[in-house]
Amino acid sequence: MKTNPGRFFEDYRLGETIVHAVPRTISGGERALYHALYPARHAIASSDEFARACGLAGSPVDELLAFHVVFGKTVPDISLNAVANLGYAEGRWLEPVQAGDTLRSESVVIGLKENSNGKSGVVYVRSRGINQRGAVVIEFVRWVMVKKRDFAMAAPEAVVPQLAKAVAAEALVVPAGLDFTGYDFALAGEPHRWGDYAVGEVIDHVDGVTIEDAEHMLATRAWQNTSKVHFDVRQREDGRRLIYGGHVISLARALSFNGLANAQMIVALNGGAHANPCFAGDTVRAWSEVLGKAPTGAPGVGALRLRLVAVKDGAEPFRLRDDGGKYLPEVLLDLDYWALMPV
Amino acid sequence: MKTNPGRFFEDYRLGETIVHAVPRTISGGERALYHALYPARHAIASSDEFARACGLAGSPVDELLAFHVVFGKTVPDISLNAVANLGYAEGRWLEPVQAGDTLRSESVVIGLKENSNGKSGVVYVRSRGINQRGAVVIEFVRWVMVKKRDFAMAAPEAVVPQLAKAVAAEALVVPAGLDFTGYDFALAGEPHRWGDYAVGEVIDHVDGVTIEDAEHMLATRAWQNTSKVHFDVRQREDGRRLIYGGHVISLARALSFNGLANAQMIVALNGGAHANPCFAGDTVRAWSEVLGKAPTGAPGVGALRLRLVAVKDGAEPFRLRDDGGKYLPEVLLDLDYWALMPV
Amino acid sequence: MKTNPGRFFEDYRLGETIVHAVPRTISGGERALYHALYPARHAIASSDEFARACGLAGSPVDELLAFHVVFGKTVPDISLNAVANLGYAEGRWLEPVQAGDTLRSESVVIGLKENSNGKSGVVYVRSRGINQRGAVVIEFVRWVMVKKRDFAMAAPEAVVPQLAKAVAAEALVVPAGLDFTGYDFALAGEPHRWGDYAVGEVIDHVDGVTIEDAEHMLATRAWQNTSKVHFDVRQREDGRRLIYGGHVISLARALSFNGLANAQMIVALNGGAHANPCFAGDTVRAWSEVLGKAPTGAPGVGALRLRLVAVKDGAEPFRLRDDGGKYLPEVLLDLDYWALMPV
Repeated sequence: MKTNPGRFFEDYRLGETIVHAVPRTISGGERALYHALYPARHAIASSDEFARACGLAGSPVDELLAFHVVFGKTVPDISLNAVANLGYAEGRWLEPVQAGDTLRSESVVIGLKENSNGKSGVVYVRSRGINQRGAVVIEFVRWVMVKKRDFAMAAPEAVVPQLAKAVAAEALVVPAGLDFTGYDFALAGEPHRWGDYAVGEVIDHVDGVTIEDAEHMLATRAWQNTSKVHFDVRQREDGRRLIYGGHVISLARALSFNGLANAQMIVALNGGAHANPCFAGDTVRAWSEVLGKAPTGAPGVGALRLRLVAVKDGAEPFRLRDDGGKYLPEVLLDLDYWALMPV
Repeated sequence: MKTNPGRFFEDYRLGETIVHAVPRTISGGERALYHALYPARHAIASSDEFARACGLAGSPVDELLAFHVVFGKTVPDISLNAVANLGYAEGRWLEPVQAGDTLRSESVVIGLKENSNGKSGVVYVRSRGINQRGAVVIEFVRWVMVKKRDFAMAAPEAVVPQLAKAVAAEALVVPAGLDFTGYDFALAGEPHRWGDYAVGEVIDHVDGVTIEDAEHMLATRAWQNTSKVHFDVRQREDGRRLIYGGHVISLARALSFNGLANAQMIVALNGGAHANPCFAGDTVRAWSEVLGKAPTGAPGVGALRLRLVAVKDGAEPFRLRDDGGKYLPEVLLDLDYWALMPV
Repeated sequence: MKTNPGRFFEDYRLGETIVHAVPRTISGGERALYHALYPARHAIASSDEFARACGLAGSPVDELLAFHVVFGKTVPDISLNAVANLGYAEGRWLEPVQAGDTLRSESVVIGLKENSNGKSGVVYVRSRGINQRGAVVIEFVRWVMVKKRDFAMAAPEAVVPQLAKAVAAEALVVPAGLDFTGYDFALAGEPHRWGDYAVGEVIDHVDGVTIEDAEHMLATRAWQNTSKVHFDVRQREDGRRLIYGGHVISLARALSFNGLANAQMIVALNGGAHANPCFAGDTVRAWSEVLGKAPTGAPGVGALRLRLVAVKDGAEPFRLRDDGGKYLPEVLLDLDYWALMPV
């Protein structure tokens, strides 16, 4: 058979490197699509002039656009037979991606643990996005539950990697040249700076966006993510197309402009859960909580650690879990990341 | 509160300049999106070769694309709490916008008039789109009805600006270098030239486009217009998403190619009314009436003043108003503009 | 009347050349849109680096994107009053199209044959896409059934062109510089090379895509195809918008990546039938059959002749026709083309 059936749990070997297919050159086209798909307004990813005034060569594409492209390439090898996307850790953006860059992806298998039912297992991979100069621009760990092809197959020795609960502030990589000392708050859209945010502070981002099937399919295809459940109504018994979790991340991040307009660049992904599935017709809203603050060595640049929560209709304000500790059914996303902000 | 609640009527001061946030760099991506969103075929905005043969440096983006980007930036400061978009006047395109240009917007408050009910008022602003070289590329006046936050607040002195009924032909700015003496009518799509149009002539543009929610939301986001009613089904009691009026303008202008293929560049917006709301599922058709003609100083270039009307299903042919002078319910748009055409 | 009513059968003259309107400059925007609209993953059209490693100047746009742009321009002159798109033949891609290229189209009328009912006739045209350097980048023959305006009009002498059943292998034009000797199969996505495919082999492409109205309208507008039935719910009695046949071609070709990832560039269109109409809500799947193989003079490059079939829900596996030889109702597309593959 010449088609790709995807890998099953027993196909992964600890330590192996998987080269993912189909490198992709990013252009102004992908930038424009990102702005059409999400209500993204952070100024550095919108304006060459603004980005240059902050010390960059030009406006990079949104950090999440780069993430989606790198992630999409991993799908045929990592998650085509995945039952669930279980988590993210140790994600870092190491270099801004510009129009003209070509990205490819590689993953190293860093953990394997069969489930007690013997029918599936958890695969941990560290994925990297690499540009045309060979520089790693993004890296992150994710783990997925993958079906076994042959239930009788013996389990490999269980190896669960030790993963940081969050990327340490000292490990954050500020883009070369970034300088917020001349930052233009009026053009950026809000006056609030790093010093104005307190750990524990919660921000309701107010706006909502109702999602259509055409939109999330355009997005998911644009990132060359081939997971069947997003495109084919025959994949789920309820005939609904599951929305790619990254689409919800981008929507929520874009909504967070309203209250976090100056949280300009995402530099780390500490963790994240797609708490419940999202479907067309859902109206997505978002709120953020400040989890931490750290200085950086770059001029005028502070780092803010944020929890970003996306919910759909009927959500209780600012509540994530039920009394048993389970995510409430209206919670879609619980993301933990670091962004850079003028001090 | 860190989120933007939008301005209320009492927050505006006569004469103040509002710097709008989030500059935007335009690329070939926005150009391509424009062609995917609207059936736009005017040759100058489609082909570098055609534009160069007309004396331009290259194909500019559609004038309405530039308008939407400039307009979108004003929304968070001008119309987030607007009850109605009341009108446009004195709009002029002063320089073509090319891929690579970065646009930002500013508005000056030129009029304020509280309504007699004391609950809202009309705000008049002159908005300008400015490129990375500091050149004003577009300017226009619009006025909106904005809610008061505090009904007890005293009204400011009423100032209603004197606005021209139409931009005078002498005030039209023809793009530098524009020369229609070698104009290729075959490549442009129609043989009809400036001399072939008579004042009072009415042109039925024949074609119709049925609109989907995904399309107008992609468009409105692409222009970074943040008005909630376009995106969030909880904003209106009927659960429908109101289509951005500019989306209807672009649809109607694109439909007008059929009969006005040589009305190549919009140079002025004399006035306009969004007569009735438009929603997904509506099929939009358009007709035009020639309101005026004027020569220009540029070689081979004439100016045509046009009324562009968009209607939806059930509209009576070429009829705008009922016997009482009110727009018929099927009329969506009544726009008055100047375009340039080969003589 | 200034609007284009389209040509009727009696308006065509054997041998006449029709210059189609509205040249179009392609940019990275159209490339990105193509990837958002179709699950396209062939590496040469995705990555500048990959394309350069294969001897090209950079990543060309997908061959079908170029086809759609050239085809779209012919619609107002050839198929606005067409009752049916009857066939394609002798299609060849003669030069890759890059971002920055400007395309225009011309057609020569090569055949005319009135139907026996005297109400319509078949028009055969050879259409060419020409770039800004005057080079023909695509040529193909298509024939359409067109209504007569005046049934009383005398029929022209019937001329039916002799068309090749398939483009001969020797007539295939391999892009200048193409060299697959250093081809990277890992980055391309599959290990299967030219020698691994046998004539008669059938490949099920496994994946399915459910189509939305917003998607096919965005696509069809992007190619400036103005055929009314794709956009206007009043055009058909059933109120459905007919999906542009080329949209189904692109979907099927993109789905064929899974099993034919190395069938990198389409170089010829031997024939094709839009067997049944496609509508929003249909889920499209595809399979291919290897019809032929041929060497080429280019280093490491072989040619594969493929039948590409698109079907919708309910289709019988690998069955095209009923016992009477008629296409089964679930068959959407039956296409015959040549692609290039590393040997």
